[in-house]
Amino acid sequence: MTTAAPAQPDGSGLDQARAKIDTVLDTFLADKARAAARQNLPDEMAALLSDFLAAGGKRIRPLLCLTGWHTAGGRGHPLPVVRTAAGLEMFHAFCLIHDDVMDRSDTRRGHPTLHRTLAARHAPGRTATAAQRLGSSTAVLIGDLALTWADELLHTAGLSHQQLTDVLPLLDAMRTEVIYGQYLDVLATGTPGVDVGRALAICRYKTAKYTIERPLHIGAALAGADQTLLDSLSAFAIPLGEAFQLRDDLLGVFGDPAHTGKPALDDLREGKATVLIALALRHATRTQADQLRPLLGHRGLTQNQAATARDIITATGAVHHVETMISKRYGQALSHLKAAPVQPGPALLLRELADNVVRRRT
Amino acid sequence: MTTAAPAQPDGSGLDQARAKIDTVLDTFLADKARAAARQNLPDEMAALLSDFLAAGGKRIRPLLCLTGWHTAGGRGHPLPVVRTAAGLEMFHAFCLIHDDVMDRSDTRRGHPTLHRTLAARHAPGRTATAAQRLGSSTAVLIGDLALTWADELLHTAGLSHQQLTDVLPLLDAMRTEVIYGQYLDVLATGTPGVDVGRALAICRYKTAKYTIERPLHIGAALAGADQTLLDSLSAFAIPLGEAFQLRDDLLGVFGDPAHTGKPALDDLREGKATVLIALALRHATRTQADQLRPLLGHRGLTQNQAATARDIITATGAVHHVETMISKRYGQALSHLKAAPVQPGPALLLRELADNVVRRRT
Repeated sequence: MTTAAPAQPDGSGLDQARAKIDTVLDTFLADKARAAARQNLPDEMAALLSDFLAAGGKRIRPLLCLTGWHTAGGRGHPLPVVRTAAGLEMFHAFCLIHDDVMDRSDTRRGHPTLHRTLAARHAPGRTATAAQRLGSSTAVLIGDLALTWADELLHTAGLSHQQLTDVLPLLDAMRTEVIYGQYLDVLATGTPGVDVGRALAICRYKTAKYTIERPLHIGAALAGADQTLLDSLSAFAIPLGEAFQLRDDLLGVFGDPAHTGKPALDDLREGKATVLIALALRHATRTQADQLRPLLGHRGLTQNQAATARDIITATGAVHHVETMISKRYGQALSHLKAAPVQPGPALLLRELADNVVRRRT
Repeated sequence: MTTAAPAQPDGSGLDQARAKIDTVLDTFLADKARAAARQNLPDEMAALLSDFLAAGGKRIRPLLCLTGWHTAGGRGHPLPVVRTAAGLEMFHAFCLIHDDVMDRSDTRRGHPTLHRTLAARHAPGRTATAAQRLGSSTAVLIGDLALTWADELLHTAGLSHQQLTDVLPLLDAMRTEVIYGQYLDVLATGTPGVDVGRALAICRYKTAKYTIERPLHIGAALAGADQTLLDSLSAFAIPLGEAFQLRDDLLGVFGDPAHTGKPALDDLREGKATVLIALALRHATRTQADQLRPLLGHRGLTQNQAATARDIITATGAVHHVETMISKRYGQALSHLKAAPVQPGPALLLRELADNVVRRRT
């Protein structure tokens, strides 16, 4: 999503949409913090979640939800649709917070991850180990609360019975898919291999369906989309979502931390089983593989070792291969978009999204 | 809940209700496992969740939901109500699985906890530390899935729009309350003190509202209960729920592992900040306190040291004090029940529940 987005068919732009989503999230969490304080409950949960959301994020899922709404003929940004979209961002906060605990990441969006913040805040009077465990436990709970509040945003959105009936199965599917994707990812992390198919499955469930397809579906369903439109959106979304994740995999190893907000060492240190790594291992010479394998999943990986790993990955041709996969998927997405029964306004937004996905640096 | 429950007004007993709830859960999870296998997704998530639910559990929340339904004039066990009730058990699985990860518990219901099972299953090819971390991450994800599927059970229950509208705010409140309660508990664990008020707040949010009040409310709301009935149920449920947790605190230290299915060392080893412990510390002599404090939260606590801790806790009068608190709350619950606008059939069930709460050994 670019910041200089074109005007919507009804004259309102993406910046305005983003501001509306953020207002919903801010107001909801400020209310929650006040309600907690009134009942002597820990208001830091809502406050930390608010900080987490304010620290960044492209709001790509809620904006796609609104775009989906427009593709199916929805006009403007009615509050029930904006609240549903905001619920997707709250759900995403749940995903990221739990992911960071599982990955033991130190930073997110240029700030300490939530579990690190909590560990530091509650360190006094505790051993380092106890504080670290407390940080993880409380972060998991704030993630759980984000998931619960994502539901509450939807439940209080003011949707009609028909809209609820149409959207709930899509939302349930999205949640199940992303959790399956993350499960596959966690099982594969630390044991990267040459299995490109496994890496692509993770890509599809964790990203393509979750980040692109389902948000579009949910928005479109709110405007009463039929199955033909939903299928057209899938045909566009799945290849684009795979391209999105493939770009992410490249950025995770070769990205500039000044842009991505996280160290370009994490994916290597965790031994993420990405398509990039699977291709590198598959096409590496014996010598390259022997050099690369011990660096993947090596928690103490230095900058120099990371540079070596990057050189080997590039030398195997994996970077070029992934760029080719991204281009191919970009082409597929655009050709499906051209054939989709979508008006020029929202089609332009989807086209811009596709361009951005293949070019982004963050 | 006793197993020899009286017949319901319409002739169906609690055993029958429990069987219906279990059938819903079994069928739902078997469908999920098959769907996952068909898509090459990890079907072990649904299978392990199914094992977890089959390993035990009193189904107290779904049975209370059905009882709530009866208090408001609902008849029989229509499938939408049973599915809503089953969703509460699925949600409870989420709570327990995450709690066990946070508490680093080894056993639950006489079996290894889910994160230990997962660590053992995925140990081959991993270091012990990596396997343990994987166990925790995957258990958190299965917990997340249980929460998502609790929603799905409700969404697919076939409730009317009015029922959904009435139930969703209660469900949202229940979820937020139990997560707040668990957050307070996690923050207090390991730093037990003399603060009885803090321990009682944990008791109220984590148990009284979550285990007793909200399940009754949800069932009653499905049958169209008005605010007067909901308030009467609260007046009964809150003291009873506190009694339930106070009994749990006693069982956690003095219970027979053959009945409770978990070692009577866990609460002491974790340094749980229960009302029992707060009272013991408050009324301990200097010598008793000096002996007791180092034993609380001592991960390597031996059986002998646990016996010493139990002796001290008893000697401070804390056990007697907690038994008195249980009796007082039991009396309050019964007196509110007598005044409540509830028919004799469901009133008898609630009375049996109250009796069971104060006497239970598991």
